This record gives sequence, C-alpha cells and structure tokens, in this order.
Amino acid sequence: MSELRNRRMVLARRPEGVPGDECWTLVEGDPVRDPGPGEVLVRVEYLSIDPAMRAYLDEDSYSHRAEIGRTMLGLGVGRVLASGDPDFEIGEHVVGPLGVQSHATRKGLSLQKIDTRLAPPSAHLGVLGVSAGVTAWVGMVAVGKLRKGDTVVVSGAAGAVGSIAGQIARIGGARVIGIAGGPAKVAYTTGELGFDACIDYKGEDVHARLGELLPDGVDLFFDNVGGAILDDVLDHIASEARIVICGAISQYNRRGAVHGPTRYLRIAERNATLRGFTIQHHARRHAEAVRHLAGWLDSGALRVREHVVRGVERYPEALRMLFDGSHTGKLLLAP
Amino acid sequence: MSELRNRRMVLARRPEGVPGDECWTLVEGDPVRDPGPGEVLVRVEYLSIDPAMRAYLDEDSYSHRAEIGRTMLGLGVGRVLASGDPDFEIGEHVVGPLGVQSHATRKGLSLQKIDTRLAPPSAHLGVLGVSAGVTAWVGMVAVGKLRKGDTVVVSGAAGAVGSIAGQIARIGGARVIGIAGGPAKVAYTTGELGFDACIDYKGEDVHARLGELLPDGVDLFFDNVGGAILDDVLDHIASEARIVICGAISQYNRRGAVHGPTRYLRIAERNATLRGFTIQHHARRHAEAVRHLAGWLDSGALRVREHVVRGVERYPEALRMLFDGSHTGKLLLAP
Repeated sequence: MSELRNRRMVLARRPEGVPGDECWTLVEGDPVRDPGPGEVLVRVEYLSIDPAMRAYLDEDSYSHRAEIGRTMLGLGVGRVLASGDPDFEIGEHVVGPLGVQSHATRKGLSLQKIDTRLAPPSAHLGVLGVSAGVTAWVGMVAVGKLRKGDTVVVSGAAGAVGSIAGQIARIGGARVIGIAGGPAKVAYTTGELGFDACIDYKGEDVHARLGELLPDGVDLFFDNVGGAILDDVLDHIASEARIVICGAISQYNRRGAVHGPTRYLRIAERNATLRGFTIQHHARRHAEAVRHLAGWLDSGALRVREHVVRGVERYPEALRMLFDGSHTGKLLLAP
Repeated sequence: MSELRNRRMVLARRPEGVPGDECWTLVEGDPVRDPGPGEVLVRVEYLSIDPAMRAYLDEDSYSHRAEIGRTMLGLGVGRVLASGDPDFEIGEHVVGPLGVQSHATRKGLSLQKIDTRLAPPSAHLGVLGVSAGVTAWVGMVAVGKLRKGDTVVVSGAAGAVGSIAGQIARIGGARVIGIAGGPAKVAYTTGELGFDACIDYKGEDVHARLGELLPDGVDLFFDNVGGAILDDVLDHIASEARIVICGAISQYNRRGAVHGPTRYLRIAERNATLRGFTIQHHARRHAEAVRHLAGWLDSGALRVREHVVRGVERYPEALRMLFDGSHTGKLLLAP
C-alpha cells in the first residue's frame, strides 16, 4: 500500500458566517498508512455533504467538533483496500466517519458494512443514510406522526432530506406542498417526486400562496429552512398542527443573530406542537427506517437524485452549495 | 331596578403597544336594563384582569374582539339582582362574560352558577377559574405532562397562573424554580408558595443563575413571559425537555415586532418539544382541574393571593399592571 498518497482537506481556521476558501488547506502527498491490528484502510468513494458539517466548524459545536490543523470530519462510504480487522475483507464496502480525504485508515469498530445489493454505495449516504433518508423518515414518521389525510408542508423540498420527507408523506397518504427555490426545483418536486404543489420562495409570495393553497391550514410542517419561511408557515398552521424542526439551513451561518420564529405564539393560539430531534436519539428505529426506504426505492415509489462534486479540492465549494441552494437532491463529494 | 345606574368602561380606540388612558372612556349614568325573558341582571362583584384582554384589543384578535364604542369585554363574577330565567334565582352567584361594568344584563345561557361553599366568589375567577387555576392545571398536567422528579421552571412565578403552576408542580413531586421580578416576589414564591428557588430577573443574570441552579437542565418549562427569558431557559433545557407556552406577557404589546425565541434550535439539538394551548381546547378537562384545585385549596396545599383594584374607572390602570409587574397573584377589578 505504501505507494498510495493521501489527499485531504484540513481546517485552517474557524469561519464567521459562510465558510470561505481561507478556512481550508488542501494537504497532498502524505503516504497512506497501512492498517494495524483491528484497523481497516478504506478508499473513500463518496462523502456526504451535510448541514451538520457547518455545526462541526463552531467552537461550541453541540455534537462533534472539527479541529484546526486536522482533517475535516465527514461521513463517507468506501471500499476496503487492506484490513487488519478479521471482520472486514478487501473489496467490501463500508460506511463510517472517514473524513474529507481520499483514503482513511480507521478502526474496524467505527465502520459498518453496507449491502451494495440493496442499493449502490452512494445511496447509503443518501436515501438509506442517516443524514438524509433516515432523517426524513424519523422526522416524518417517528417525530411528526404522519397521518393519512394530513396536509403536509416541506421546506427545502428539493433537498436531500426534504425531497424524501415529502415523498414519505405522499406515500403515507398525505397532501404534500413543497417550498423550494426556483422553477427547476418546483418542477422537480411536482413532477418526478409527485408533490401536489410547490411554492417557489424566490419568485412567489410564500405567505400569500400558502393562504391560497391551504385554506384549512397545515397539519404537519417539516422544516429544513427556518427564518422567514418558518414564520410564514406558522401563520398558516391548523389546530393541533405538528411542526418538526429538522434543520434551519437559512440560520446556520448566523450564530449570534439567529432569527427566532416571531410567529411562535400561533403555536399557543392553535394548540400546536413544535418538536425537534437529532437522528442519534432515534437510533433504535434506524433499521426500521432503512427497511421502509429500501422497499420504496425498490418498488419505485421513492425517487432520488444525487449531485456529485468531484475532487477533494472542491470540498469548500461543495460545502457552500448547501447554503446557496445551487444543488438538487443529495449532495456528495467524490474525493 | 330602574333606579340603578350603570358604570362601564368603553373602548375609545385601539392601542399601539401598551394601552394608554386615551383608549378608554368611562360611561356613567345609563339606566340598568331590567332582564327580559331568559335574561338575568347581575351586580358585577369582580372582573378578572387577564393578558387575554390585551389580545381582545387588536383588530385581528384570534379569539374574541373588543369593539370600539362598546363596553370592554371581561369575565366576571357577580350576584343575581333580578332574573327572567327560571334557572337563576336572586342572590345566587354566577360567572360569565359580564364586561367591564358595574351591572350586566345577560342571557342566562351565557352564565354559570358558582358554588360559593367551595370558595368565595373571587376565587372562581382565580384559583378555580379558567383564566388562572384551570389554565395552570391544564398547562402543567394535561399539556406539560408533569412527572414526579421533574425539574420545573416557571416564569411569571408570582403571577396568577405561574404561582399556581409552580405549586401544582411542587405538589406533583417536582423540583420547582421560579423566575420573577424583584425581591418581594422571590420571597413570596420561595416562602409562602414553597418553590425550591426563584431567580430575580430584575436583579440577577438569569442565564448564569439557571446554569448554577440546574446543572442537569430543565425538564419542563412553563412559560408565561416569552422574550429574553424564554431564550435563557432554552439554553438550559435537558434532553427531551417539554416547553409549555402558556403566555408571553413581555410580547403582547409588541405585535409586529415580537421577539421570537432565537435559541429555538436547542429544541432540535435536545430532542425537546414546545407545545402551546388554549384553555377552550381542553374544556373537557376543566371539571377535573377544578376538582383537583379545590381539593388542594381545601387541604392548604395550594396558597393564593389576590390583588384587587377598586372602581370601574381604574380599569385602564389595572390592565397596565399586568405588563409592568406591579402586582402579585391574581389581579381583579371590583367595579
């Protein structure tokens, strides 16, 4: 293995706001380390580009924290090139915290094998992965208590989580309204994904359109976005509505200046419930989620898109794409 | 009855912010109208001064709305002076939407008899009334799902609802921390009411004190206040915390400029739930609430204070007292 050279993205400084290029250093040419006992060497095929990565960059990150001078954290899938752990064989595919790099030497204990007969490796980061499909399922089913006949609104509707969340609602017998940015995403959600309608927040008055589309209000709102869109939807919640806070992509770069939901008293006025969740907290239901998702994928009920950015050196750009809305579906880096 | 003259407070204009004297006109000298068939004439003894009254003043009030040129709405108790409804007899006490006035002629159907053996008339607006005791019970028990061993925080702890909510939590086996303004209120809650501790938001750093008092976080937050205090508590919620939005006294005069909870993403990070409620929505549990409250009152487990303002003409002043924190316990007007 010793002829292999690693390429990795190192955190140079913590960002204020949107992470610029100055936050990163590409480090090339380190020899790839052969696995010791209990370790596995993995060729990283895809990395999941997630909003959680933005949280890792903050000094007071509530979950994992990226360290200055170290390889950026990231969940990835890859193929085993060499193994010092009897549980893993060369050629098998694994998922785990591989980091933003071309090769990773990791303890076997930190890795999970994936079943590439169920779906190709990248799908295990997307539709079958914790950061997209499993998050969508847990948020919609376990937290949001989706019911047949619900009127459901999903923000970030063309994104990795939102596109699956909305489809889960459709499959579950709900009427589904998306909120997304631009005509292409609107067409994607109402066409390929089968949403009943989608509001273009870049070109339409979201508040007014919600009023037109939802005269009886929203039963279940799955929010990936926060900010003004959350306020607009709160004004249209039905009695006993459920609001699931999955994320707040509009707010992650704002830190001290987060826009809190100014219409939160609608929750009191309408006997509603706002609930948040972390995917780790629902670990005991992940297998159930994957079983459902894989079944729908197999039957064609669930459609997914991936947006792959190629090259470790493009990681800073890929991360920013999360915030500028320039991708559709699951965003991946092929290092 | 014809020699009786009414005194009533009429809405002259809708307020911006805190309702000033210019919003009101005292109208004196109208003859009191004798009850027709099915009607009852009531001498109003006490009116409940509630935050809900502020909402009635807004053009787009979500519940009832006060009308310009009409007697201000208000829930009151009083004694029957004359009756055209065979269900009511002279001398009986009733509760109902009597309005801010000395005498009210109302349909018997809109009134409920109260049992003055259970507690004196004013208590039926306070500890046994929908706007205080029943709200506290519903919020703490039915909505907040109070559990023995919970660490509970109550804001507006010396107020009509907060003082009862905190005592219900204590009776239910919780550790109770209040938040109130000024040493007298702090002493009242930790002394007479038996709270475990109380933070003086006017004299102490609420965020820092919460950290000291609650190293393991808040399990249940009963919020009457909103604004900065809600943010401070959100930073200290425990995993799976429940936040009950009972009110937001700090925000009712702000309308378009409501301070939304900027720390609302803590709800996601900590798998928490924020729930709002209206008391009407839980009507089927009111009798159960009154039964519990009356029992605790009778046994001495529950202590209450009333603050009575005398004179219809002092209604504008009494209403403002809700917002400036200058009263303790249940605020009443004796017209």
